[in-house]
Amino acid sequence: MSLLVVGSVALDSVETPFGKRDDVLGGSATYFAAAASLLTKVSVVGVVGEDFPLAELEFLRRRGVELDGLEKVRGRTFRWRGRYGFDLNAAETLDTQLNVFEHFSPKLGPVARKAERIFLGNIDPELQIRVLDQAERPRLVCADTMNYWISSRRPQLQAAHAAQRLGVKAVVVKRGEYGALLVTGEHSFFAPAFPLADVRDPTGAGDTFAGGFLGLLDRMDAGNMAALRQATVMGCTIASFTVEQFSLDRLRELDLAQVRARFNAFRQLVHFDELPEHVG
Amino acid sequence: MSLLVVGSVALDSVETPFGKRDDVLGGSATYFAAAASLLTKVSVVGVVGEDFPLAELEFLRRRGVELDGLEKVRGRTFRWRGRYGFDLNAAETLDTQLNVFEHFSPKLGPVARKAERIFLGNIDPELQIRVLDQAERPRLVCADTMNYWISSRRPQLQAAHAAQRLGVKAVVVKRGEYGALLVTGEHSFFAPAFPLADVRDPTGAGDTFAGGFLGLLDRMDAGNMAALRQATVMGCTIASFTVEQFSLDRLRELDLAQVRARFNAFRQLVHFDELPEHVG
Repeated sequence: MSLLVVGSVALDSVETPFGKRDDVLGGSATYFAAAASLLTKVSVVGVVGEDFPLAELEFLRRRGVELDGLEKVRGRTFRWRGRYGFDLNAAETLDTQLNVFEHFSPKLGPVARKAERIFLGNIDPELQIRVLDQAERPRLVCADTMNYWISSRRPQLQAAHAAQRLGVKAVVVKRGEYGALLVTGEHSFFAPAFPLADVRDPTGAGDTFAGGFLGLLDRMDAGNMAALRQATVMGCTIASFTVEQFSLDRLRELDLAQVRARFNAFRQLVHFDELPEHVG
Repeated sequence: MSLLVVGSVALDSVETPFGKRDDVLGGSATYFAAAASLLTKVSVVGVVGEDFPLAELEFLRRRGVELDGLEKVRGRTFRWRGRYGFDLNAAETLDTQLNVFEHFSPKLGPVARKAERIFLGNIDPELQIRVLDQAERPRLVCADTMNYWISSRRPQLQAAHAAQRLGVKAVVVKRGEYGALLVTGEHSFFAPAFPLADVRDPTGAGDTFAGGFLGLLDRMDAGNMAALRQATVMGCTIASFTVEQFSLDRLRELDLAQVRARFNAFRQLVHFDELPEHVG
């Protein structure tokens, strides 16, 4: 089993009704790897600048994340600045500085090229395509995107089409606080967001959803409908931890026993019995 | 088993992005009874005016609904006029005419007084309290309300308090297209809205939810957590039919076999297996 993520490793500045943080650890690849590494072996391909505090990633290395594909180059690290109102579903992007991402071209090493499952984080769609071009035997590819690329790079937004050429099997509609819907040719599956008393910062929820989703599929080495359902719930489960604290603060200290306990609580949350025979 | 609903029997004028209807059958008691009568015996207490087309309720009578408590008095029937935009979760009330409801005081006959389960539909909170005063042995009371009463009759909005004095056991938060959350002292349960390709008119969804909920509890003569979970799904199930057509058009032709089939589809929609032992 092998899981590859290509995405941003970033410094985020975030404001929510519950607090404010400047230049904290962020990025789609970072969140994804923090979630997926609870379940399986993950390789990261990305780029940071000279200003990036690599010690912040030590907790990932301790979880076995392969960081050799993370280049450090001259220049400043990718930065995102955003704000959320009380409707935590909608981020307002105040500033996006590509910085070292502007001239980044992902290079997959010999191990990364052979990854069976790939997550194309929310980066320039052109870069997403270049990753697919280098992948030698992808069995499952998930691609993410966001409004920044949709509005500025619409003509190149073709990772979805490229993925379709590889044969799209399932679509996951992430609905933030309203949960996630998995749609395949034959079945639909719905998982709610786990009800939480305190949500402080929704940044990274979608990427950790993807990390839990692909992480579980990779660990189980499966892709059937039963596994896709469990993976969707695993995505919601880990995402529900992410939003409890700013940045990766909650993910840093998370372990698989806590994840398993909340996964089981999810079962309790949605379980109901069949109708008795006499009804209908 | 016996189920009583006190609420409006109305003529609605509704506009949605998918069409427009004037003076069609509506009202909280009507929707509730149409749903609950698929499952159990229902009595209606309410009032209509001289202009009300009683033949419209024939389908309820055929389902065994007891309509003797529906008074016909001099004056015009209660009327509601509303509009929905593409966000079908939010109704804009354009006009509410109380008409015969202005001088209505619910009178429970000997059978209605002995009802074990009662739904207080969205009517004047003062009337809701008068019903409770007449109920001799209610085991389960559900009270509904809406923005009209909340803003105009806040001081009298005490049905909730009265119900609390009777001992509130569970709260159901109806979230429209985002499903329903059941909260008791010890457990939470979440049911999504059934994913539909076509939603034409959300009017009555909440009342048919209540009808399915209480209807199933009454038929099963149960109120434990397992039954409350099934009842919540039954509420979502019948509500999902309601919104497929305007007014009560879909409910008129609905039968229990169709309901049971969709209830089972709900199980498929949310079911997932336990994690394998090796995860965690």
